[in-house]
This record gives sequence, C-alpha cells and structure tokens, in this order.
Amino acid sequence: MEATMTPLASGFDFDIWMTERLAKVEQALDRWITTNVSAGLDHGAPAALVQAMRYAVLDGGKRLRPLLVFAAHEAFNGSNDGVGAALRAACAVELIHAYSLVHDDMPCMDNDVLRRGKPTVHVQFGQASALLAGDALQALAFELLTPLDGSVAPVIQAQLCALLARAAGSAGMAGGQAIDLASVGHTLTEDQLREMHQLKTGALLHASVIMGATCATPSANALEGLHIYGHAMGLAFQVVDDILDVTADSATLGKTAGKDAEQDKPTYVSLMGLDASKAYARDLLQQALAALQSSGLHNAHALQALAHMVVHRAC
Amino acid sequence: MEATMTPLASGFDFDIWMTERLAKVEQALDRWITTNVSAGLDHGAPAALVQAMRYAVLDGGKRLRPLLVFAAHEAFNGSNDGVGAALRAACAVELIHAYSLVHDDMPCMDNDVLRRGKPTVHVQFGQASALLAGDALQALAFELLTPLDGSVAPVIQAQLCALLARAAGSAGMAGGQAIDLASVGHTLTEDQLREMHQLKTGALLHASVIMGATCATPSANALEGLHIYGHAMGLAFQVVDDILDVTADSATLGKTAGKDAEQDKPTYVSLMGLDASKAYARDLLQQALAALQSSGLHNAHALQALAHMVVHRAC
Repeated sequence: MEATMTPLASGFDFDIWMTERLAKVEQALDRWITTNVSAGLDHGAPAALVQAMRYAVLDGGKRLRPLLVFAAHEAFNGSNDGVGAALRAACAVELIHAYSLVHDDMPCMDNDVLRRGKPTVHVQFGQASALLAGDALQALAFELLTPLDGSVAPVIQAQLCALLARAAGSAGMAGGQAIDLASVGHTLTEDQLREMHQLKTGALLHASVIMGATCATPSANALEGLHIYGHAMGLAFQVVDDILDVTADSATLGKTAGKDAEQDKPTYVSLMGLDASKAYARDLLQQALAALQSSGLHNAHALQALAHMVVHRAC
Repeated sequence: MEATMTPLASGFDFDIWMTERLAKVEQALDRWITTNVSAGLDHGAPAALVQAMRYAVLDGGKRLRPLLVFAAHEAFNGSNDGVGAALRAACAVELIHAYSLVHDDMPCMDNDVLRRGKPTVHVQFGQASALLAGDALQALAFELLTPLDGSVAPVIQAQLCALLARAAGSAGMAGGQAIDLASVGHTLTEDQLREMHQLKTGALLHASVIMGATCATPSANALEGLHIYGHAMGLAFQVVDDILDVTADSATLGKTAGKDAEQDKPTYVSLMGLDASKAYARDLLQQALAALQSSGLHNAHALQALAHMVVHRAC
C-alpha cells in the first residue's frame, strides 16, 4: 500500500517542527541533569557524577525517541493539555536510551571507544563512573516522570512509569541486550532476530509513541493505530541501523562502523542480504503510514515525517 | 534519653512478626522475578537474564529494607488497607538494594568475589550479565510499583515511584556511591562521612520507612516522626556496618571482612575509634526510639524492634 500523505502536506514544515522540539528537549535535559534534581532530599547530587551524566546525554544524539513522544502527543490535540508531561516523558525516554549506551559501550559489553563522535563515557571518566552514571540516569528518568510540584496528574505519572519500566526492563531493552549478548557467533532465524530487536530497541521506541499518546487522552482506535505504528517503527529503525553499519562510514554514523560483521553479530543484512533488507525497511514504513491513516488521529504529520526520516536514512 | 518501651512490650512477638514477613517477601520476590513479569509486552524476559537476576536477589540477605516497609505500613493501622502496595514496595526497595550490590561488587568497583556466602553475580555469570541483571533489577523495581491490574491506586503508585527514584538516583544511593568512590584514600571529616552515608545507604533505608507509611494514610505528625526515625536508622546502620567490618569475620558477615581498612576507606571506626562509634550507634538508636514515641503512631512495636536489632548486631 502506498501512503497518500507526505511530510509536507497541509503546510506542515517538518524541519521547523523538529528544530523547535529538539531545542526544547535539549534545554530541558540541560536543566534537569543537575546537582539538585531531587527536591525532597537534603542533599544534592555530587558534581563528578552529574558531570559524567551530562556528558553521556547532552550535545549529541538524534533524539528520535523524544521526537516520537512529542509527535504522538501532538497527534491528539492542538491544545496545551499534557505538554508538561510530554516534555518529561520525552526526556525520560532519552535518559533510558543514553544510560543503555553508556553501559553497552563498557569493556565488558561492546567495548566501544567512540560514541556520537566523542570518547565514550568509560574512556572519559573511568569504568566505575560510567557504571554509576548509567545507573543514576535510569533512576533520573523515573524522577522526571514523578514531579513533586503537582504539574502532572498522578494517574498519568503512574501510567508513564509503568510503560517506561517495562520497556527498559528484562522483558524490554535489558532483555534484548541479554539475548544480543548470547547470540554473538550464533545463527539466528529471522523470527529470532526480530524478537531480539523488538526487545532491544523496539520496546523503547514503541513506548516513546505510547507514552506521548498517554499524555493526551487517546481513543482506543487511535491507540491501536499507534501500537502498530510503534512496532513497525521499532523494527524499521533496527533494519536501517543494520544497513547503515554496512553502507556508512564511522564519521557519518558518529560511532564505529562495520562492528556487527567484525563481531560476527547476526543482522538483517547478514540474514536477508542488503537489497532485501532495504525492501523490508520500506515495507515497514508503509505499514506504519497505513496504521496512521486508519487511526483517525487529528494530526499525524510529525509521526509520518519521522517514519520517512528513519527509513530514508538508508533507503 | 532512655526509651521506655522494649520490643516485647504489649505481647508483641518480634520473631514471629519477622518470620512471617520474611516468608511473604521471599515468596513475592520468587513469584515476581520470572520470565513473564511484564504483562503488556508480547515477549517474556530471556531465561538467562532472569536466572542472574534471581541469583542476585533470592535466598540471601537480611531483608532489612522490606522489613522497614512492612513495619512502617503496619504502624498506621491494623486493617488490610494498602497491604498489596506495601508488599510491592517491600520487594521494590530490596530489588534496588540487590542491584546496587551486583554493580558494586563488579571488578571496576569494589571487585568483590563473595556476597551472602556465595560467589558474586559477575563471578557466577560474567560481567556483562551482571551489568544487565543489575540494570534490569532497577527497572523491575518500578514495574512492581506500577501494577496494571488496578490493585494499587495511581496516586500511591506515583508517590512510591517518586520516593524510590530519588532514593536510588544521583542525589541518593548512586550519588553516595560516587562520593564513596572518590573518597578512597582521602581524609573525610565526620560531616563529610555522614553526608556520604546518608546518600549511599541512608536514602534507601529512609525511603523504605516513608514508602511503607505512604501505603497507609499517614498524618503529618506521624510522618515527621518517621522521617527522623528513618534518618537515624540510616546512619545507625552504616555505623554498625563499619563496626562489624572491624569486629566480625567474613563467615559471620557473609562478605569479605576488613575490606574498608584494606582499601583505606574512611569509616566511622577509622574516624572516631571503635568505642565512640559504638556509643554513637546507641545514641542514634535512642533518637530513633524517641521519634517513634512522640509520633503518635498506633503500633510502633516492629519499628522499635528493628531499630534494636540493627544496633544490637554490633553494640
């Protein structure tokens, strides 16, 4: 099925939309990763730890997960309902993503020295600090979702924490990383590879979409469409990542290219070949766009544009 | 000030109380650390990861934090209000504690090979699995606090997540560990040592007390008393830990004794001497008991008994 809408339909300017939201999330992360995040305790966070946390999060990254949160939230209404919650959710998913990169880069995991064009956190600050910074970033995500100032309704706080915890945990991201770890040097079927990626990267991308919607008041039909969109985007992102690991260079990626093949990791490209992987990514894009079309959302332009952006990086 | 009440006042049998609660928390942890914790996702957690998580948590540990949750909750009423929430909070604080031990034992941190009389998680399963198991245990704590079955009111879920995230994060436990890391080989003042411990161990012990109370309907006066109790117990626990590191052997502790002195870590004993440390622990016990007496709690027997138990391990 071919989607009929394009990112620029109805005068929607995706570049302006993205620039504004990236600035918002960057400012918020900068403000919230500080030495005194935790009102309610007598003490602030130690400066050295916060420095490593800020290094891990600020000034880098595509911020795809925050953008998905904003896009899903804004798909429901043009009002300001839930804007504060959506900003917190956007930062929280990025903190979980950032912590997973810090731990994933450590010598006992992928042992990577370059991330977003900079030395990885353990190279810059030492392994112990990287370990603690990652741990503290995960906790901070849940701090952000539970403000003490009454700005987010408790029922929304609870739903956001529930979604994020499950996406991050043993049946989500951490579980996917464990399968990834165990799969090096093994042959996986396409189903097994898909299952691994649905946990490792798909769960948090999917949760970003659903958390954004949760900050609005989603109808069941719209939520159903977003579930399909979120799953398709989660898979598409990984297929594209596998393609880029083969076709792009380290400078373009901001991380070490060709690592998957070097480490004998199963990927979509190693399993299906390059052309079939690209066709699969394009198919997932169409699935995502079709789900949006049938969901009855008020304003799906940003969600559509993000889907195009993810897939067109590689295809 | 001398406390007038004793653990056995009013026919309260602490041993029976503790045995029953330890059994409850053990059963619940066993049930909740499984391959299908996360209802709402298509996939279960991978068995290898769950195996490491279970090894880290089950069959070991004094479960002091869960006991504090139960005792604080039950101090408010004799009814069943909030029993389900308290059990979840009890398990959640233990999961945070357990994950911190797993990461703390890793070679890049304390490099410890013995914990609760067993090989540490990274010795048993490898460093990468230990890292991921710790990460997943932290997420699981927040999963437990946000059940999807309607059994815990959203406002309670939100409050419990807020308390736990702040106690675990950069201005709590992780922050304290960062200060601890930076302080090896340095001379700390008593104030600096106290601040480090208030973050590293005090914050989670204090949160255990307040989370238990949150599952009931605490009055402001009672909550004030529990804050003082929680702070005093957090400090007392660490003073006692420092004393035992000098006076007990590894078999009694279930971990390597004498490590603090060996690593040139500042402790209460190295700073104040053994006798003054013991006197300080006894003073903190009296502070905790006095706070309970003035708090107007219905039933503070278990809280009193736990305070005695912590301090009398060493004094």
